[in-house]
Amino acid sequence: MIEPAIAAPAGATPTTADRARLSVMNFLNEVAADFPQAISFASGRPAEAFFDIGAWLEGIPRYFDHLAARDGRDADDVARRVGQYGRTNGLINDLMAVQLQADDGVPCSADRLVVTAGCQEALALCVQALCASPGDVVLTRNPTYIGITGVAALAGIDLVPLDDGAGNTADAIEHAVRNLSAQGRRPRALYLIPSFDNPTGTTLSADERVAILEACQRHRIVVLEDNPYGMFRFEGEAPPPMAALDRHGAVVYLGTYSKTLCPAVRIGCAVVPETLFGDAAASRALIGELGVRKSFITVNSSQLNQALVGGVLLAEQGSLERLVAPARHHYRRNRDHFLARLAAEFPAGCEVGWNRPEGGFFLTLELPFAFGEREVFRCAQDYQVVPLPMSFFALDGSQDKRVRMAFSNVSEAQITAGVAQFARFVRDTVAAMPRREGRA
Amino acid sequence: MIEPAIAAPAGATPTTADRARLSVMNFLNEVAADFPQAISFASGRPAEAFFDIGAWLEGIPRYFDHLAARDGRDADDVARRVGQYGRTNGLINDLMAVQLQADDGVPCSADRLVVTAGCQEALALCVQALCASPGDVVLTRNPTYIGITGVAALAGIDLVPLDDGAGNTADAIEHAVRNLSAQGRRPRALYLIPSFDNPTGTTLSADERVAILEACQRHRIVVLEDNPYGMFRFEGEAPPPMAALDRHGAVVYLGTYSKTLCPAVRIGCAVVPETLFGDAAASRALIGELGVRKSFITVNSSQLNQALVGGVLLAEQGSLERLVAPARHHYRRNRDHFLARLAAEFPAGCEVGWNRPEGGFFLTLELPFAFGEREVFRCAQDYQVVPLPMSFFALDGSQDKRVRMAFSNVSEAQITAGVAQFARFVRDTVAAMPRREGRA
Repeated sequence: MIEPAIAAPAGATPTTADRARLSVMNFLNEVAADFPQAISFASGRPAEAFFDIGAWLEGIPRYFDHLAARDGRDADDVARRVGQYGRTNGLINDLMAVQLQADDGVPCSADRLVVTAGCQEALALCVQALCASPGDVVLTRNPTYIGITGVAALAGIDLVPLDDGAGNTADAIEHAVRNLSAQGRRPRALYLIPSFDNPTGTTLSADERVAILEACQRHRIVVLEDNPYGMFRFEGEAPPPMAALDRHGAVVYLGTYSKTLCPAVRIGCAVVPETLFGDAAASRALIGELGVRKSFITVNSSQLNQALVGGVLLAEQGSLERLVAPARHHYRRNRDHFLARLAAEFPAGCEVGWNRPEGGFFLTLELPFAFGEREVFRCAQDYQVVPLPMSFFALDGSQDKRVRMAFSNVSEAQITAGVAQFARFVRDTVAAMPRREGRA
Repeated sequence: MIEPAIAAPAGATPTTADRARLSVMNFLNEVAADFPQAISFASGRPAEAFFDIGAWLEGIPRYFDHLAARDGRDADDVARRVGQYGRTNGLINDLMAVQLQADDGVPCSADRLVVTAGCQEALALCVQALCASPGDVVLTRNPTYIGITGVAALAGIDLVPLDDGAGNTADAIEHAVRNLSAQGRRPRALYLIPSFDNPTGTTLSADERVAILEACQRHRIVVLEDNPYGMFRFEGEAPPPMAALDRHGAVVYLGTYSKTLCPAVRIGCAVVPETLFGDAAASRALIGELGVRKSFITVNSSQLNQALVGGVLLAEQGSLERLVAPARHHYRRNRDHFLARLAAEFPAGCEVGWNRPEGGFFLTLELPFAFGEREVFRCAQDYQVVPLPMSFFALDGSQDKRVRMAFSNVSEAQITAGVAQFARFVRDTVAAMPRREGRA
C-alpha cells in the first residue's frame, strides 16, 4: 500500500471531487500491486535505511531506569507499571516538551501536550473537538494533505479550500470568512503544513505566517500547525514555527516522531496554547476535550511506544538533531539529484516546470497536459515509474496538470532512472498531443 | 486515573443520565487522587505482577526472524520494514487468527481480521461504520461497559438499553425493535460482553446466546461480541462464543491483548463474519469501511507492538493458554477470597447480596440503600475503601443500589481489609437509616 487506503465513507456526504480523489487512491494502490517493479515517486515514506530499530528497542530499559531513579522505585516495578493502562494524555510529555522546544523552537510545557497515536490521531481529535456545531468548517490551503481531507469527510465536517492562488493566504482567510458567514457557517480551524508542505513542498515565509496568525486571531480560527518535516531543512534560514510567532493563543501545534524516528512508533502530539485566544479556561477545556475523545478511541497511546521514544530522547539528551542529521543529508542529496536530473531531462523551453523545496520530502512538477488516473496507469505500465497526480490532493480542478514527486525513500539510481522514464513519458505524451493551441 | 476520564462531550447531546454518570467518573478520579491510601476495588485493571515486559520486548526479534525466514529476506531489513508505515488492517493477522481460533474458539481467518489500537478503537470503528444514517441506534444491556457509552455519546449515536430485567434478552430485542420502529429509528448493532460481563460479572448461557443471535438475525442487527475476559474462566464449562454459534453472519467479534498480555501493547481486533447476514460483498465492504476509518485515525496499529504480540504468539506456538494460567489462578483465588470475605462479613439475613462470577474481574454487590457519588466519597474518606457505583454504568435509575467490585488487581490482604472496611461502612449506613420501611 502506498498510503492509507481511501474509499467513499459511509455517514458522510463526499462531494464529486471527493469521490474522484478517493477512487484515484484506490487506483494507485492497485497500480503499486500490479507494477511492483515500477520506480515509485508516489510514497512519501521516510527512508528506512535510517531506522535503528534494534538500538531503539534496546533503549527502552533506559526510560524504565529514568523513571525508577526519578520516583525512587524498582526498575522492574516501573516496567510493569508502564505495561499497565496509563494517563490518557500521556507519559513522556515532559521529555517531548523539551524536544519540541529544542528542535522545533516550539514554546511548550508538559501539561499542554497531549501524546497521541501518531499525528493523525491528534488531527482527528482536534478537528472534531473544534468543529462541534453544525456549520463549523475547517479551512485549508489547496491542494492539501489527504489526512485532513479524510478526517473531515468521515466526521461530516466541510473542508473549505482557501482561494490563495495569488499567494496571499491572509486575504484568502478574510474572503472565506465573509463568504461562509453569509451562508451561516463559521471556520473554526485552519489546517496548514507551513514548512515543506505535503503535497507541494513549499514553505510559508515569516511574514506570511504572521499575517495568517493576525487573520486567524481576528476571527478566532485555531491554526492547526502540522510540522512533520521541520527538522529536514536543507538550506536557508528557518522561519519560526507559527506556534512561536503566536501572540494570541491561536495555534495548536501538531508533532510526530514518524519522520524523525519511524512511523511504527505511532507517537505524535498536539500542543495546546497556554491561553486559547487569551482564555486560559478555554485552553484547559480543549485539553480536557481532547483527552475525553482520545479515551474513547485509543484509551491512551501505547506506553511501550512512549518508553521507546523516551529512551531515545534520554540517550540524545533532549534533541534529535544529531540523530536526524544523516537522514537529512540523504534527503538533501536526493532533492539535489532529483533537481539535477529534472534540469537535464527537461531543458529550458520544454513547458515542464518545478519548484525547489528548501527541505522535506516533496516537490511539485508542472506539466503541459493533465495528469490523472489514466496517466498514472500509462506511466506505470509503459514507463515503469509511478508519480502522484496533484489532483489527488486538490479540492477543485486547479491542480490537474501538476504532479507530486516524493524523493524521500528512493535511491540516487532510482531517481536517475525514474526521472528519465518520466521524461520519456512526458515527451511521448506531448508529441502525441493532437493540437498545440492552449499551451503557453 | 482509574479508567478513561469522561466529561460532557461537545458535539453530542448527552442526556441528564449521561451527565450524571460522566460527573461521577470525574469525581472518582478525584477520589483516587485525594485518597491514595484507600484500597481500590474500582479499577478493573489486569494484575501487573504477570506482565513480563522485559521478556516480551526481547521476543520482538523472534518475529523479525519469522518474517525473514518466511519471505527469504535479511532480518535487519525486515526490522526496518516493520518500522515503516504498514497495511492499515494489520501485519500479524495470520498469527492472531490462529490464536483466536485456538484460545477463544472463534472461527477466523486473517483476511477478515482488522488489527486495531486496542479493542476500544475496534469498538469506535464498528459503531460508526454500522450506524451511518440518522435514526440508527446501538442496543446494549443495562448496565453496560462505559467504553460503548462514550463512543456512542461522542459520535452522537443513541445507545438504547434493553429492558431485559426478566433475563430474556431476545424478547427485549424484539420489544426494542418494535418501539424504535414506531419512532422511525433502527437498531444496527447490539453491544455485549457475553462472558464475565463488565460491569456485572455475569455470563450468558449457550441458549441465551442462540436466542439473541436469532433475534438479531431477524432484524439484521450486528452483534458486537466483546470478549476481553474469555480466557479467565475459573470453573464450569464455557458456552461457545457467539461468533462460533453464529449461523447467519451476525457477529463481529472484538478481541484484545490488554488482559492476556498487557494494556500497553494496545493491540486488539475486530473479526468480521465471512458473509454479513449471508452477503459476502457486504462483509468485504464492512472490512473496507473499517480500514478507511482506521486510516484516518491511527493510520495503522503500531507494527512494533504487533511484532511484540507476534513474538509472544510464536514463542507460545499460537495459544496463550500456558501464559495466562498463572494470572487466571490469581484472579480465581482473588474471587474465592472476595466471596469468602463477603460471606464472613455479611451473614445471612443482612440484606446484602452478590453474584458468583465464573470468571473475569468483577462481581456485583446489592445493597439495601442507594450507593452513589456521596457514598464513594464517604467510603474513601472514612473507611479507606473505594468501590464503584453500578449507577455509573447504568442507562437509567435501576442500578442505584448496586456496586461493581473489581478483584483483579488487588492482593488477598487488600481484599480482607477492604471488604471488612466496606462492611463496616454498610453496617454504619444501615444503622443510621432513619426508617426501616421500603426495605425487603
